[in-house]
Amino acid sequence: MNHTRKVTLLPEGKTFEVLAQTTVMEAVAQAGVTVTAPCGREGGCGKCRVEVTSGVAPPSGVEREALTAAQLASGVRLSCQARVVGDASVTVPAASRAADMRVLLGGVSRGVPFEPNVVKTAAELPEQTLENPVAKLEHLRRTMDLRADLRADLGLLRRMPGALEASGGRVTAVACGDRLIALEAGDTSGRGFGVALDLGTTTVVGALVDLTTGKGLGMASAVNRQTAYGHDVIGRINMTVEQADGLETLRRAALETLNFVVEKLTQEAGVSREEVYEATVVGNATMVHLLLGVPPRFLGRLPYVAVVGDAVDLRAQEAGLGIHPDGRVYVLPNIAGFVGADTVGAILASGLDEDDGRVRMMADIGTNCEIALRVDHRLIVCSTPAGPAFEGARIACGMYAAPGAIEEVKIDGDVRVKVIGGGAPRGLCGSGLVDVGAELLRAGVVDETGRMLGLGELDGRVSPALRQRVMEEASGLAFRVANGEGGEAIRLTQRDIRELQLAKGAIRTGIDLLLERAGLGVGDLDELCLAGGFGNYIDKRNAIRLGLIPDLPLERLRFIGNGALAGARMALVSTAMRRRGEGVAREAEHLQIAGTPDFQMRFSEAMLF
Amino acid sequence: MNHTRKVTLLPEGKTFEVLAQTTVMEAVAQAGVTVTAPCGREGGCGKCRVEVTSGVAPPSGVEREALTAAQLASGVRLSCQARVVGDASVTVPAASRAADMRVLLGGVSRGVPFEPNVVKTAAELPEQTLENPVAKLEHLRRTMDLRADLRADLGLLRRMPGALEASGGRVTAVACGDRLIALEAGDTSGRGFGVALDLGTTTVVGALVDLTTGKGLGMASAVNRQTAYGHDVIGRINMTVEQADGLETLRRAALETLNFVVEKLTQEAGVSREEVYEATVVGNATMVHLLLGVPPRFLGRLPYVAVVGDAVDLRAQEAGLGIHPDGRVYVLPNIAGFVGADTVGAILASGLDEDDGRVRMMADIGTNCEIALRVDHRLIVCSTPAGPAFEGARIACGMYAAPGAIEEVKIDGDVRVKVIGGGAPRGLCGSGLVDVGAELLRAGVVDETGRMLGLGELDGRVSPALRQRVMEEASGLAFRVANGEGGEAIRLTQRDIRELQLAKGAIRTGIDLLLERAGLGVGDLDELCLAGGFGNYIDKRNAIRLGLIPDLPLERLRFIGNGALAGARMALVSTAMRRRGEGVAREAEHLQIAGTPDFQMRFSEAMLF
Repeated sequence: MNHTRKVTLLPEGKTFEVLAQTTVMEAVAQAGVTVTAPCGREGGCGKCRVEVTSGVAPPSGVEREALTAAQLASGVRLSCQARVVGDASVTVPAASRAADMRVLLGGVSRGVPFEPNVVKTAAELPEQTLENPVAKLEHLRRTMDLRADLRADLGLLRRMPGALEASGGRVTAVACGDRLIALEAGDTSGRGFGVALDLGTTTVVGALVDLTTGKGLGMASAVNRQTAYGHDVIGRINMTVEQADGLETLRRAALETLNFVVEKLTQEAGVSREEVYEATVVGNATMVHLLLGVPPRFLGRLPYVAVVGDAVDLRAQEAGLGIHPDGRVYVLPNIAGFVGADTVGAILASGLDEDDGRVRMMADIGTNCEIALRVDHRLIVCSTPAGPAFEGARIACGMYAAPGAIEEVKIDGDVRVKVIGGGAPRGLCGSGLVDVGAELLRAGVVDETGRMLGLGELDGRVSPALRQRVMEEASGLAFRVANGEGGEAIRLTQRDIRELQLAKGAIRTGIDLLLERAGLGVGDLDELCLAGGFGNYIDKRNAIRLGLIPDLPLERLRFIGNGALAGARMALVSTAMRRRGEGVAREAEHLQIAGTPDFQMRFSEAMLF
Repeated sequence: MNHTRKVTLLPEGKTFEVLAQTTVMEAVAQAGVTVTAPCGREGGCGKCRVEVTSGVAPPSGVEREALTAAQLASGVRLSCQARVVGDASVTVPAASRAADMRVLLGGVSRGVPFEPNVVKTAAELPEQTLENPVAKLEHLRRTMDLRADLRADLGLLRRMPGALEASGGRVTAVACGDRLIALEAGDTSGRGFGVALDLGTTTVVGALVDLTTGKGLGMASAVNRQTAYGHDVIGRINMTVEQADGLETLRRAALETLNFVVEKLTQEAGVSREEVYEATVVGNATMVHLLLGVPPRFLGRLPYVAVVGDAVDLRAQEAGLGIHPDGRVYVLPNIAGFVGADTVGAILASGLDEDDGRVRMMADIGTNCEIALRVDHRLIVCSTPAGPAFEGARIACGMYAAPGAIEEVKIDGDVRVKVIGGGAPRGLCGSGLVDVGAELLRAGVVDETGRMLGLGELDGRVSPALRQRVMEEASGLAFRVANGEGGEAIRLTQRDIRELQLAKGAIRTGIDLLLERAGLGVGDLDELCLAGGFGNYIDKRNAIRLGLIPDLPLERLRFIGNGALAGARMALVSTAMRRRGEGVAREAEHLQIAGTPDFQMRFSEAMLF
């Protein structure tokens, strides 16, 4: 028995195969077309109409109620109901399509169906009579054509009579998914906002979005206040185990930071926090656990498991987030203990959730580096402990990519640097570190084992200006990259080079093992997408020279910046993207590499430049 | 195009019609067979297997994953996935059927699929390894074969690590629908309880149920503490409008009563309140609003609408009910402002939710009398203001059916009474009131207009013993039914007879208008089911003599007692019955009769005996 059926999508003229019995809505979704379904796919709204010629099962009872006999006779059907049974031809009219929008953020640019979870609907409520004595909630659903399964939390039910009386009849319903979260007096449907939040171990970044248009209204960031209690996730996990109030302290610190960012975003945009109805949150699994107040201790020991991997959807007030108290917080799902919601976000941002026929990889470079590989229907992910070198930690003169950081270094007889914000340099950030490492290697100051050559060895092999920068310190050799404001040396030490080797070794090992798992080599990669705080500025050639990334034609490399945040923003404006993220978390294959003997062996090889 | 398909159910050999594209599970449900679906109908558990020969669409992807090729080849299918496309023959093996059980309560006896919402599953959790690093919640779902969409509230996620560690590996998961509500150490799967609660305006009744067997473990009742603030719903609604803390006072009073009943039930059965995981609640719409703390004021004025009509499902702690704090409270849906969750319960108890080919009516007699009529696919309901006569209110010597109440009266030359609990009578309850009214009518002391004959008129027409019982009081005539303990007369006044006429007039008008709406007459009724606190004891002949109920052959009359509570108990042990109740609330036609001119005219006619 052949279980697939051919579907031709019109007016595109695209033909593809789906499993028999798939709904037309799901079928065309596989071809990238999102049909609007404000009723939550129950057939109640009649807005998902398509036209079919053949190959579709007879109309369901729901369809016969929603459509006239004439419509049915001419092939009009509800795509949430009609099922493909034979080869079919389906026309999806423009009116039934979710508008597309483009999410742009850093190096990310992806078209997504514009279908926010938050929907505001205004109406003049007709007076009820004895002929129509339905309950108020049902009255709202009918009058405003809201989804049939819309329900309300107890708090809103309690406030509903007062809200209806205060409105004088003209009222705006705010729905978040299948929940009515607010009733506002008058027509406020023109204003509605959401925030996408990336709760990083070190930095928290937020984006404010107008949910009526999908447009970004600004970004803001802050240092995660949890850093006061430890710089890495392990330290914070330990704090929750060792201190009775450790978890609560860290939860509050995360919340304070998020709320500070939300406050900044809304103030700068002239928006009230009560008008922010939903937040989407990404972060690694430990950050998500700490934010939710869920003990993360299983993440700190073998085999590193989360308590919950599903997406979590809760009331803003329950989460403690300072948006509309009945608003919702949607935390993206995680894939594994070290492949978190931030990775799911970066996968969405890089488009790896979809198979476009190419072999593509995404690496989100941070203290923990998560890598994902898309080959046909397979999405394989792993994580590798890159260490904090690229974020400036454990590097003698390292710093975060902030004003004063050296972000570019050229060595050509002597050294030229570019400093973020201009002025005197204060330290080296990730991209500067990559540059200086690669340039010293190219110049011969560092050899391929990572050893910095001594003054005696350098004599006659490099320019005197370069040789002069090498300093013999008590702890070993160091290279003076620049002079800081007070004349102190911004330098790269032998130890820094070892840190850089550890980082690049871990990342390369992850990339290689993932490719091997799929039976592929570096040459098979059609695209390598690099995400991370420093991603926009890194020098591709230098990254290849260091062996941080494989030697690929430069046009196959793409830097997308903060992919995690971009993914959170996609989930905020597009429930279709939210479902895709959930599919990614459910279906990705997780390759456990850290801690395996294979990894250790490959890792030590990959440390060579 | 013909949209229906014939399905033959085996081994029953029953043939029936369903719409094309119906799932096999839904199809056989229409024939009264409930297939087990512990996974929540997502195809994840593979437990809903059936065998089909033809007429069913090709297997879905989910089926091809869950079933082997050999199984598929031999016709084994998942009934939640497979859809009827042609005439089909379906064998539902015993293993796939939800066990049936009989709910017995008062005069109710109905078989329902035993499928409680609360499911306890015990397992030894295997240690997780690096090969299987899924999140704990997913680990539980997989190890215990729990439904794929099982999720946990934030509170449980926070406690989960501690609960898992304390359990030493052997753990019992308590699921309530799609929510994990508790993790208990060891194997506690043998103990699990629920309560069905009827929150009446005057009386609260509860039943404790063993959810592992479905058996009742006892009943308890208490006077609703709200009666301290007013005897009828209108008084209580007014209190919420007139006093700032009126709603909160009434909410607490309802909760205190319910919690008292729950405490009594659990203590008497030797069950801990933490072992009670779910409560189902029925009550009229005002009682439900007061319990939830939702302002009921729209119920107190035209057109008498509820805030919410849907079933409400919330955490026990949020509701304030003293069972397991993460347990759930399920409040049955209401149909209209005066046709509440109690009526939905009584409809389930009387079986009117199903069309069995007969014309059936159910009347739940109380201060407000709700009446439902089942004719083919139609279920029509109405409510009529019977007044509190049958509950003993506004009757000179009226009282509730409690010890000391006269429950039976015979007049045969003189008067004989039967008193609840024996001993001296204290007053007249509903059934006694019906008896005395009917007997006085038969004896000629009262005429068909409801007028009590004067002493002069009675002379020679009734026995001297009866005539002697008629007393001329300042406010009019009265009839001495019996003497109370201190020698005071338990009597029926002319005014009482007028109250009785109002009550029976309202009920009869409701019955007649409902029949008319369906184009039927009294003779078309195959069954009339009477529910209500007094229902078990009322004398059928006297009720007919008074005209309270139509003159039907006695075998067509059935008394079921507290149908509302029986329905709540069905919803507690059977999610299938819960869905039926929701279907009733959604699909019942509501006939608005009170307040219409037609009602007034008919009502005054129906007041005649």
